[in-house]
Amino acid sequence: MTVQARVFKGTRDILPEELLSRNRLLRTLEGVFEQFGFGPLETPAMEHLDILLGKYGEEGEKLIYKMAYKGGEVLALRYDLTVPLSRVVAMNPELPLPFKRYQVQPVWRADRAQPAQGRFREFIQCDVDTVGTSSVAADAENVAVVHDGILALGIDKFVVRINNRKILAGIREWAGVDPALEAELFRIVDKLDKVGLDGVKEELAKSGLPEEPVAKVLDVMQTKGAPREVLVAARAQLASSERAIEGIEELREMLDYATALGISEERLKVDLYLTRGLDYYTGPIYEVVLADDRIERFGSLAGGGRYDDLIAFYGGASVPATGVSIGLSRVQTALLKLDLLKRRRTSSEALVLRFSDTPLDQCLLIATELRAGGIPCESYYDTDRLKKQFQLAERKGIPVAVLAGQSELEAGTVNLKHLARGEQVTVPRAEMVAKVRAWIDGA
Amino acid sequence: MTVQARVFKGTRDILPEELLSRNRLLRTLEGVFEQFGFGPLETPAMEHLDILLGKYGEEGEKLIYKMAYKGGEVLALRYDLTVPLSRVVAMNPELPLPFKRYQVQPVWRADRAQPAQGRFREFIQCDVDTVGTSSVAADAENVAVVHDGILALGIDKFVVRINNRKILAGIREWAGVDPALEAELFRIVDKLDKVGLDGVKEELAKSGLPEEPVAKVLDVMQTKGAPREVLVAARAQLASSERAIEGIEELREMLDYATALGISEERLKVDLYLTRGLDYYTGPIYEVVLADDRIERFGSLAGGGRYDDLIAFYGGASVPATGVSIGLSRVQTALLKLDLLKRRRTSSEALVLRFSDTPLDQCLLIATELRAGGIPCESYYDTDRLKKQFQLAERKGIPVAVLAGQSELEAGTVNLKHLARGEQVTVPRAEMVAKVRAWIDGA
Repeated sequence: MTVQARVFKGTRDILPEELLSRNRLLRTLEGVFEQFGFGPLETPAMEHLDILLGKYGEEGEKLIYKMAYKGGEVLALRYDLTVPLSRVVAMNPELPLPFKRYQVQPVWRADRAQPAQGRFREFIQCDVDTVGTSSVAADAENVAVVHDGILALGIDKFVVRINNRKILAGIREWAGVDPALEAELFRIVDKLDKVGLDGVKEELAKSGLPEEPVAKVLDVMQTKGAPREVLVAARAQLASSERAIEGIEELREMLDYATALGISEERLKVDLYLTRGLDYYTGPIYEVVLADDRIERFGSLAGGGRYDDLIAFYGGASVPATGVSIGLSRVQTALLKLDLLKRRRTSSEALVLRFSDTPLDQCLLIATELRAGGIPCESYYDTDRLKKQFQLAERKGIPVAVLAGQSELEAGTVNLKHLARGEQVTVPRAEMVAKVRAWIDGA
Repeated sequence: MTVQARVFKGTRDILPEELLSRNRLLRTLEGVFEQFGFGPLETPAMEHLDILLGKYGEEGEKLIYKMAYKGGEVLALRYDLTVPLSRVVAMNPELPLPFKRYQVQPVWRADRAQPAQGRFREFIQCDVDTVGTSSVAADAENVAVVHDGILALGIDKFVVRINNRKILAGIREWAGVDPALEAELFRIVDKLDKVGLDGVKEELAKSGLPEEPVAKVLDVMQTKGAPREVLVAARAQLASSERAIEGIEELREMLDYATALGISEERLKVDLYLTRGLDYYTGPIYEVVLADDRIERFGSLAGGGRYDDLIAFYGGASVPATGVSIGLSRVQTALLKLDLLKRRRTSSEALVLRFSDTPLDQCLLIATELRAGGIPCESYYDTDRLKKQFQLAERKGIPVAVLAGQSELEAGTVNLKHLARGEQVTVPRAEMVAKVRAWIDGA
């Protein structure tokens, strides 16, 4: 009996070629996170259903993979990393605050997968959060850690859009829109990037939202200029709204902190129409977008904001928090499009081939010497035709072939072949590592 | 409404303190894997149930978390990484063989959890496999990669036990035990480590296995001595069994290759009573055990073997394979017991404290300078009493505190305090990084 090999629709295997570069990218980001004192956290894939439903409610229930378990317990696979973080903080009151953690783990969503667009039912989330402080400095640090991380990956054309939920609420209030319509108003405004200003106006008209206040909202949201200019203009317009002023003041502070954290003000953009959905954000919100002429309409590389009320849901005590999520697959795609992602099909720099008269243990010994010299490599085990052996090196993308027959073994030499160049040399065994290294380094 | 925060029994959160050291350990192992040309692989957590059941059958069904999905599909969480690997190879016939992969991902088992003994329902597996070659060199390389990995972690007192399923089958044959009783015979013999020779003899007597052949089996299995001596003695005794001789010859080859791969023969032990269960192994089997007087009866750090028939189950074509699994939590525990695991509660080497007269952006600027100098650090955001700020550094385990009040800012200096020593110095700002680094490095 055999079983037909297949994967669940919307999930996928990730082969070494992709993971070698993805993991290098992750290690770079994690290094930056740790530079800022963020520590790693892992939580179980399975959570009790009521824990997960708490935040998303019925809408979320459709998104969740559920499992019945003995004794009536219902388990589910996590669909984000914010709920587990909130649970961890609620369950560990002894944690010294602020608790700064990063978390790189898969999440599962039972919605429609679009593999062609890179939307899968299982995907890695990469979150950085600071829990237990109301200081805007934590918001600024979250922006800085993402900023430094993206720079470290080699992307330097990007902009950080920042706004504040308090300003949005203040604008709504100031314009005289019914609070009950706030969610609808900003849901439509949020589409500005996708459908343009005319599209937004059209949809707002259709929505039945009151015309005049909505025009006021759109007007103030479009204030343009350098970050501090936008804040000055907004402060003048929204002077009557205490909430707006509070939000503006937080953004001004955030600009100071971001500068101190090494972010050039040219990269910062106060965007009053940034809304980032409205589910649980309570203060500053932020989003990193690519600003490279070579790629249009790419969308955000990272985004997040302050959510001061979420953790109380699990623990009773109110614990302020702010977090940012990096879109790992988007960053990977951007790096690919910008030709910044070094694709390697294998870590091996050399393949030790085998002449029919070479004992296999002698080939392994050569590989051991290469490794001792810091050169990742592998060995060909069988005595196939050399052509077939060279083909394996090519198919695997291994740049250098190493050969030693009986005569080379006796003479203490080795033949090296640079596959891309077709260049071949014979060197004393003692010089093998240095020569291979020189080739790898491009000499 | 609030929800009671809790985790599913048998699962756990892993906090930064543990992950910082675990991840460092994993990065070291992955570095060694890549030195040998093994590449990373990731597969989805959810697989179709029939794929998973294929291997374990009804016994396995009890171990698996199942989820019903739309349209009658039944999904399940993987319980090992070998089945997914086999499926990947079957689904990707274009992969250049041998396919050498490592995989570090969680697996889920619906059996009884024993958190106190470190047995959880979700745990990380760390597997290294070579698929697509019958060469014993691949078995030897799997042993070498684990050997080098464990050495790289600082553990040097360990032994690699090796045996061969063909020898076991040959011994059974030679002794004249009914093939139908083979599984039962070796299931009992496998307990030798746990219950000793007398315990094994007792259980064999109770089992109803024939007395005389069983005595012959036990006798030959206990052959002791240096690896090659054991093989010579076994060859003499088992000369009449072709299978045994084949297995002995493979082990002899394996010893040659292991030596070429840099493994000292003193670390190798041919153990004819090593069985490692009998479910799917077909050739060499191996196990790494701690051999440190400071820890008794610790069990194995890693183990594996050749399984040449498993992949055909998913693909039709016969593809030989050999693999080894590292017991990550066991390795961690061993490192802890041997005092080799550097526990760090945080990556931060410094906490920038804040005097009430220091603007927060100035503190952030100091932190930015430290980071630019390669020193991971974090900042205290509020103007709490200094005592409380120092307490945070102590609770988080941050070794150095950095302080600058208005007068230091004006003088271009900074105060540094080494928390463990209570030592305090004032240095010019330009010397801050060098001094903190010197302290961290133990000067």
